[in-house]
Amino acid sequence: MTTTPHPLTLHDDRLFSSDPVQRAIARRLYAHVGTLPIISPHGHTDPSWFAKNEAFANPTELLLLPDHYVFRTLYSQGVSLDALGIPRRDGSRAKVDPREAWRVFASHFHLFRGTPSSMWLNHVFHDVFGLRARLAASTSDLYYDHITAALQTPAFRPRALFERFNIELIATTESPLDPLQHHAEIRESGWRGRVITAYRPDPVVDPEHEQFPDALRSFGEITGEDVYSWDGYLRAHRQRRAYFASMGATSTDHGHPSAATADLSRAEATRLFDKVVRSNVTAEEAELFRGQVLTEMAAMSLDDGLVMQLHPGCFRNHNRALFERFGRDKGADMPLRTEYVHALKPLLDRFGNEPGFQLLLFTLDESTYSRELAPLAGHYPALFLGPAWWFHDAPEGMWRFREQTLSSGGFYNTVGFNDDTRAFLSIPARHDVARRVDCAFLAKLVAEHRMEEDEAVEVAVDLAYRLPKRAYRL
Amino acid sequence: MTTTPHPLTLHDDRLFSSDPVQRAIARRLYAHVGTLPIISPHGHTDPSWFAKNEAFANPTELLLLPDHYVFRTLYSQGVSLDALGIPRRDGSRAKVDPREAWRVFASHFHLFRGTPSSMWLNHVFHDVFGLRARLAASTSDLYYDHITAALQTPAFRPRALFERFNIELIATTESPLDPLQHHAEIRESGWRGRVITAYRPDPVVDPEHEQFPDALRSFGEITGEDVYSWDGYLRAHRQRRAYFASMGATSTDHGHPSAATADLSRAEATRLFDKVVRSNVTAEEAELFRGQVLTEMAAMSLDDGLVMQLHPGCFRNHNRALFERFGRDKGADMPLRTEYVHALKPLLDRFGNEPGFQLLLFTLDESTYSRELAPLAGHYPALFLGPAWWFHDAPEGMWRFREQTLSSGGFYNTVGFNDDTRAFLSIPARHDVARRVDCAFLAKLVAEHRMEEDEAVEVAVDLAYRLPKRAYRL
Amino acid sequence: MTTTPHPLTLHDDRLFSSDPVQRAIARRLYAHVGTLPIISPHGHTDPSWFAKNEAFANPTELLLLPDHYVFRTLYSQGVSLDALGIPRRDGSRAKVDPREAWRVFASHFHLFRGTPSSMWLNHVFHDVFGLRARLAASTSDLYYDHITAALQTPAFRPRALFERFNIELIATTESPLDPLQHHAEIRESGWRGRVITAYRPDPVVDPEHEQFPDALRSFGEITGEDVYSWDGYLRAHRQRRAYFASMGATSTDHGHPSAATADLSRAEATRLFDKVVRSNVTAEEAELFRGQVLTEMAAMSLDDGLVMQLHPGCFRNHNRALFERFGRDKGADMPLRTEYVHALKPLLDRFGNEPGFQLLLFTLDESTYSRELAPLAGHYPALFLGPAWWFHDAPEGMWRFREQTLSSGGFYNTVGFNDDTRAFLSIPARHDVARRVDCAFLAKLVAEHRMEEDEAVEVAVDLAYRLPKRAYRL
Repeated sequence: MTTTPHPLTLHDDRLFSSDPVQRAIARRLYAHVGTLPIISPHGHTDPSWFAKNEAFANPTELLLLPDHYVFRTLYSQGVSLDALGIPRRDGSRAKVDPREAWRVFASHFHLFRGTPSSMWLNHVFHDVFGLRARLAASTSDLYYDHITAALQTPAFRPRALFERFNIELIATTESPLDPLQHHAEIRESGWRGRVITAYRPDPVVDPEHEQFPDALRSFGEITGEDVYSWDGYLRAHRQRRAYFASMGATSTDHGHPSAATADLSRAEATRLFDKVVRSNVTAEEAELFRGQVLTEMAAMSLDDGLVMQLHPGCFRNHNRALFERFGRDKGADMPLRTEYVHALKPLLDRFGNEPGFQLLLFTLDESTYSRELAPLAGHYPALFLGPAWWFHDAPEGMWRFREQTLSSGGFYNTVGFNDDTRAFLSIPARHDVARRVDCAFLAKLVAEHRMEEDEAVEVAVDLAYRLPKRAYRL
Repeated sequence: MTTTPHPLTLHDDRLFSSDPVQRAIARRLYAHVGTLPIISPHGHTDPSWFAKNEAFANPTELLLLPDHYVFRTLYSQGVSLDALGIPRRDGSRAKVDPREAWRVFASHFHLFRGTPSSMWLNHVFHDVFGLRARLAASTSDLYYDHITAALQTPAFRPRALFERFNIELIATTESPLDPLQHHAEIRESGWRGRVITAYRPDPVVDPEHEQFPDALRSFGEITGEDVYSWDGYLRAHRQRRAYFASMGATSTDHGHPSAATADLSRAEATRLFDKVVRSNVTAEEAELFRGQVLTEMAAMSLDDGLVMQLHPGCFRNHNRALFERFGRDKGADMPLRTEYVHALKPLLDRFGNEPGFQLLLFTLDESTYSRELAPLAGHYPALFLGPAWWFHDAPEGMWRFREQTLSSGGFYNTVGFNDDTRAFLSIPARHDVARRVDCAFLAKLVAEHRMEEDEAVEVAVDLAYRLPKRAYRL
Repeated sequence: MTTTPHPLTLHDDRLFSSDPVQRAIARRLYAHVGTLPIISPHGHTDPSWFAKNEAFANPTELLLLPDHYVFRTLYSQGVSLDALGIPRRDGSRAKVDPREAWRVFASHFHLFRGTPSSMWLNHVFHDVFGLRARLAASTSDLYYDHITAALQTPAFRPRALFERFNIELIATTESPLDPLQHHAEIRESGWRGRVITAYRPDPVVDPEHEQFPDALRSFGEITGEDVYSWDGYLRAHRQRRAYFASMGATSTDHGHPSAATADLSRAEATRLFDKVVRSNVTAEEAELFRGQVLTEMAAMSLDDGLVMQLHPGCFRNHNRALFERFGRDKGADMPLRTEYVHALKPLLDRFGNEPGFQLLLFTLDESTYSRELAPLAGHYPALFLGPAWWFHDAPEGMWRFREQTLSSGGFYNTVGFNDDTRAFLSIPARHDVARRVDCAFLAKLVAEHRMEEDEAVEVAVDLAYRLPKRAYRL
């Protein structure tokens, strides 16, 4: 093994076509968007970071353990979660030196070749930490020491990074049961960073969620409403939505197994809710209930102006043994085939033409881009398409999203990028990838004489900055 | 706002790769097909245009109001159909000055960036009307005046345009109830333009069509057959098919919710038909009936030689409120997931190997290209693939069609392009896009040494001219 | 018609991008893999060729008649199977001079333009036989005579070709009922070519297979087990697996209509098996049984180390009339929509995390690449993705496979290429196409600065050589 590590570079033209005509156009477009402030309207960073502004501990705690899209790749090649020191469901944790865990990661870094994780991580290593050698077994300790040292400095505290990253706004995501104290602390602190919340009520909406009975009880306690009556339950939502809005929220977020919506009569909904709270619903009734709540949420949106996001189509915690030992969010969520045209009709029949109602749709089923989502969003005033998401948040996935939604949906029924991440340090890298891919895509249109360059500049700025602000009412 | 409008250009190399090797090949291929006569074997132009040869009124009436794929985009961004003066279902219409409606369109023209509509419209503006400034709010009146004036001149009458467009043949689409008087008038007029019809019996085939009972009654009146008996119903079809054939038809066209076919015994079919005419079929029975009629149509094809086209997989009039107010065809049709392998088996078991039977398949579900359609068409002598269609009739969609059907279906089980449009002025633009995309696609194969250029020339001419003539027996 | 045939060329840079930057990188990568030995761990060559080492007869018998992916294309354009002399189900065969059949093929060779068949065949013509004129009607006899003469020489005997092709290992596929005598003869012959078998038990696993009752009886005879009891049936599998392993097998192969798996209790499995052997199972029970056997096979894999391959999603023998006259494998198999996330869960719940268990998944439904397969393989240690397969084994299909599996699955959860072919002479051509496409794909990543070239070299060698050896334990 050589003792000279490979250099780590971040090419100025990365993600642009190697065709010189397209590359030159892409560069010119990128010059208009590369340094625009970051709008991050949907994500999973921890608001306590910005409230407390404490130093992160080390690279393992910061970059490896919380990122199940990094450690799932190691797991898929035989690295056990205990070898990394991932916390278990029961709160225990294998005794692993974080430096050792980082070495395991470093020695498997070739597994990420070509993946978005390698791009994001290398961007972080290079631009955030100033590293210039590639991560490998031989550089593992160099990385560990360098990053750990940097993290102890003021420039690497969460608020300093937020400012350095040129984040204009970031939204976190909280359950209705969350008191939002960190958001309150941020506001009271006088710090000018704009950190808002988003209302994600899944645990009190999904009767099949393992926390549903407890969550519902807490929902009653926190709101003082009788959440075991349909009317009280809806009032509780209205109350919490209003509180979230007062903490800056401009959107709600709904992660359901399918896109099913329903539009039951008041009597039917009441009967269904009575079964739900008695915890004896069938799978079909649970589906119907979730669908009915979506339509109720749309109705509330019209009143309080919160934009609605729907992310359907995921089988959560697919790996039974892993779930039993390590709990949720361990990289075992799997996309499902998803239908939209029939599923959304009840909700759209009520609110699809309603001025002021905005429903942002996401998918994990790319076959719906051209078949269902773009035709729907290209017609209904209320519908907009969220960006290529989760498993598809990669250059190829973003490219497919544009290629498959452009003809029926255009650019202007999409909402720009959102990073959807808890990996705070990677946020600039993720937005940069999205901006570069959009510039490369537009450069191809210009190079093939389907659009003039002045139009492409406008579209690039719209996608990077204006459309997310419009879509999320920021 | 500047007072100098942006220039409108139509680049000679549009839609060709910016790679110089591929572009040079594409140019040479295009030189063989760019000026070939247009074969338009499937479309929705109004035969009265060619029968009466009257002047079109103004750009709003000609280009905006009939084209629901233009105004759906405006609608999706909050422009009401009344703001454009779209006729309502009850025959009334908001009082809108067509010049004002055109201004609304012009000021939203940026919404079409990158879409096929913008390519087609710019082609029409540039080549048909000679405009050299880009459409925008600032040029709206210039456009309106210029186009309105042009339309009053003899060169812009329908027949003059037909000849200028170098159309060798155009097919319209009519219901069996249509007396085809315009087609008769065209024939009797002595004009040499070849305008033929196609037999589209959906209103008398689909028991769930809202016009079915009335259409069936008229079907009986126009044919003199007892269309309430299964035998009489089939005889009525045979009679009308023969009449359509005498008016030039070489094909039938079937737009069904799914690709389901059936092959019932005579007794079963008779029983089913009796339920259909008593109007008390379930959704499953309606599906079965449509499927049985498809198989009957195939049987008739073997006798009268009309080529059969099947376009399944669309949820029509998805927007309930819009349908109630404005009626059909207002841009609210939505593609559905569609299955072919099981669905077509009953029909293929009877006629799939039959010499002389030709079934042209279309889809709105691109996931079936490589999975079902190309393997089916690459085996059954009776099957051919229609081009990328409707929502997929765009450069990206055409490219996906070729990339996903080539390996199993080849070029020679496809039927070339058809424009499927009611937007008469855009027909040259649409065929030009298809020819350019095919040349670009072939140029890539040549540039990557997968095909010799002399072969690509032959394929290009086949796709643009010979294959549609063979597929539609023209 | 000209008397000068077109030259036949095989360009050194075929399948590489025409962009000079990408092409130069691809060339450099290919220099590392182009001449690596061929690992062919999954295919359908006839072991008797290598056991007997007899001369092939003529090009029609060698290249046309056994290759249903060649003659299906002719059939789709109206050439009858009798015109080619394809053997019928009853053993009879139309009297056709093989030279005449070859002429029919030659005169239709343009149908293959752009398809992988044309690439493979031209590679065989050019490199294996040294032909330098393109196949066409005018060169048909020249081809026939030249190839027939070559085949009579020692250099064209199967073993000589095996060595010339630089095949390190080839696996054939046999039924449990096969005595593997040809494999035994090869071993005993002293020839050093490594030809191994693979265990494909479909005829004794699928109650809906037309040979199931007979196959089950033979299964009992060949093993001496009571295969009409569930325990005896499982013991018979274990015994035959052990025998196959002793003949070099390192894998089993399962071709099922769906990916369904099951994990029944012993009592349930026994009851189901009793119905199966009494031949009165419903379609649902047959599906359940196949799914249960897959899980049993996985359990045996843990014991005997045979890697498991699953190829679901094909409707076999779709063309009824053709099947009745000509039997199986006549080019009428059709892909089906296939679901994996729910289907595999029973098996994965038992063995998905098991060290030492390897399940290689294939698909004919490309919509599952990014949605299901890459996310599953990118998580479960036991899962790996087989290459683009069958209808998708073409440059475009391979490219889509990489583009749609890379971000969630990476390169290292895939298993490299396998040719899956009975067309022995095309094996070098097929592996060459796969290596070139992977080099072209990697070259794009390098050219767009997503990977360094030294990394791409390693990945290219891994895909061409190391990963198949690891995946198949060779």
